[in-house]
This record gives sequence, structure tokens and C-alpha cells, in this order.
Amino acid sequence: MKYGVATFPEKKIQDFANSFRKRYDPHYAMIPPHITLKEAFEADENLLSQVVKHLDNVARETAPFKVHLPKISTFHPTTNVIYIAADKTEHFKTLHEKINSGILYQESPYNFIPHITIGQKMSDDELHDVYGSLRMLKLEGETLIDRFHLMYQLENGSWTIYQSFLFQGSK
Amino acid sequence: MKYGVATFPEKKIQDFANSFRKRYDPHYAMIPPHITLKEAFEADENLLSQVVKHLDNVARETAPFKVHLPKISTFHPTTNVIYIAADKTEHFKTLHEKINSGILYQESPYNFIPHITIGQKMSDDELHDVYGSLRMLKLEGETLIDRFHLMYQLENGSWTIYQSFLFQGSK
Repeated sequence: MKYGVATFPEKKIQDFANSFRKRYDPHYAMIPPHITLKEAFEADENLLSQVVKHLDNVARETAPFKVHLPKISTFHPTTNVIYIAADKTEHFKTLHEKINSGILYQESPYNFIPHITIGQKMSDDELHDVYGSLRMLKLEGETLIDRFHLMYQLENGSWTIYQSFLFQGSK
Repeated sequence: MKYGVATFPEKKIQDFANSFRKRYDPHYAMIPPHITLKEAFEADENLLSQVVKHLDNVARETAPFKVHLPKISTFHPTTNVIYIAADKTEHFKTLHEKINSGILYQESPYNFIPHITIGQKMSDDELHDVYGSLRMLKLEGETLIDRFHLMYQLENGSWTIYQSFLFQGSK
């Protein structure tokens, strides 16, 4: 099965993201607006209890933290994605590294850049049009990160929740 | 905010359900195939911690149970819904009653009938066509129910996970 680890920003941020995703993100219907903490990975169902235990340990020692969402940005020209940027704080970096360790360790060609995708698979022209009008926006958004979720992918590409993990560390 | 409580059957059942939902269920993209345990309800965010505590208590005293999915059925003529029926065992009935108690108690005009919707808002003709060919199917499906999830609805109608609750009772 294909699994992934994500966290969902507060509802008002999700609604804001969806207003763009509806038009610019072909994955709009596959999963609500999210910040990916661990990219999709294949895991045997027999290993699931170990994956859960690992994630549970990470959540136990992580304290809830607030994340600033300062602006809209793009991964162009690497890939034609527009996203709401989240500040890459030490909290976030540590969280990602802890999740991506032990049984879930995988080397990645990309650096971890916490973000909420609002557009992808866009043509160059479309990306420049849309990003040109969004890049000047000052967002000043903020969201609390106090949990993450292990999700799995169905055959149609959509994602179902398997389990949520609440942060239990103290600040 | 609008909340709901649902449980997701095993992946192969979800994939099977989606093969029909894609064509016959306008809510296909809003939420993965599920069994509703508590219909959508409005709750003030200030009450959320009490709702979570209530659901946590229910999950703590509930033991995992298997559910037989014997056939495809319909709520017609009450409403033009086609669904995968789940046996209404004592386990299921008790679980629903416990969730729908205390702070979450609401009187409902419907009896609780555990099911996975695969088609809705169909015309009479369409329903009869589709149901006519599906009613003879013997499913012999089964799924383990060992958790449920508190979900909330976004402005576009889709549902996001808030928290999962794992059954911790002993059989």
C-alpha cells in the first residue's frame, strides 16, 4: 500500500487554499489542503504496526507549535507548482527529520520545504499569469500544528485517513 | 463548524465502492467511502475539547469488531440511495448509541442503518436500472472496525480529518 504523512492547516487556511486549488490543482478532489511531512511511500501492510509505533513515538516527543504562512511562492522552474509557503522553523525541520528516520528513512532528492500546494501541473504561461498576480499578496497567515496523520492511497488516487497522532511533548 | 463521525472500511472495500461512486455518487470527491456513525452536526469550536473527550471515552470502552457486508441494498422510496449494507450487529448498534449520547445526543428521524453509500441523488429510472443489476450480487464482504474519526466540513463540502479514535476495549 502507498502511505503518506500530512498535517492539515486550520479550516480557514484550507478554505483559502481550496479557492485556488479548485481551478489550479488537479489533486483538488484527492485530499484536502495539507502540508506533506513525508512524501508517499510504499510499505507492506505487515510493517504497518511498526510504522504506527514509530509515528507515535515522534508525536509523543513533539510539542505543538505555531507556523507562520507569510506568502505565496512557486517551485518554478524545478516544477510548476504554486504554494502557500510556511516558515521552515527548527520545529518543522526537526519534525520532518524525526518522521523520516528509522523504519521510515528514505533519502530524498528534494530538501524539505513545508508548503501547502494550491496549483500544480500548470503550463508555463498559466503559472506565470497566476503567480504574477499572487506573488504580491502578503498573507500573514498562521496555523497551529499539533498533530499529523498517516494516510493511505486508494486506487483512484484519493487519500483516506488511517490514524492521527497528537503531539504530546511539552514546550 | 460542521462535524461528523465516520469509519472507513478496509481499502479493498473502499476501492470496490469507488468503482460505483465515481459514476453514481455526487459526493465521490468529498470524502472516501465510509460508514457514517454520526450524521453531520453543528458544534461550536469552544465545545470541541468536550466532543473529543466524549469520543475518546467511547473508543476506550469499545472493542474492535468485524462487520459482515452481505449485499447491496437501497433506501428507495424513502430516498434514492444505493448502498453496501453492513449487518446491524449489537456491537454496531451500541457503538452508534454511545457516540450519539451525552454532549452529542441528537434525536434523529431515521433509524441507524450502517451502510456505505455507493450511489445517491439518482433519478428513479437510473436507480432502478443500477439497483436492478446490483441487487442480485452476493457480496460476502467483511471489514474490521477498530477505530472511528471525527471529521469537519470545509466550505466546498469536502471533509477533513480532525482526529482518529482507536478502540481500546477488550472483547
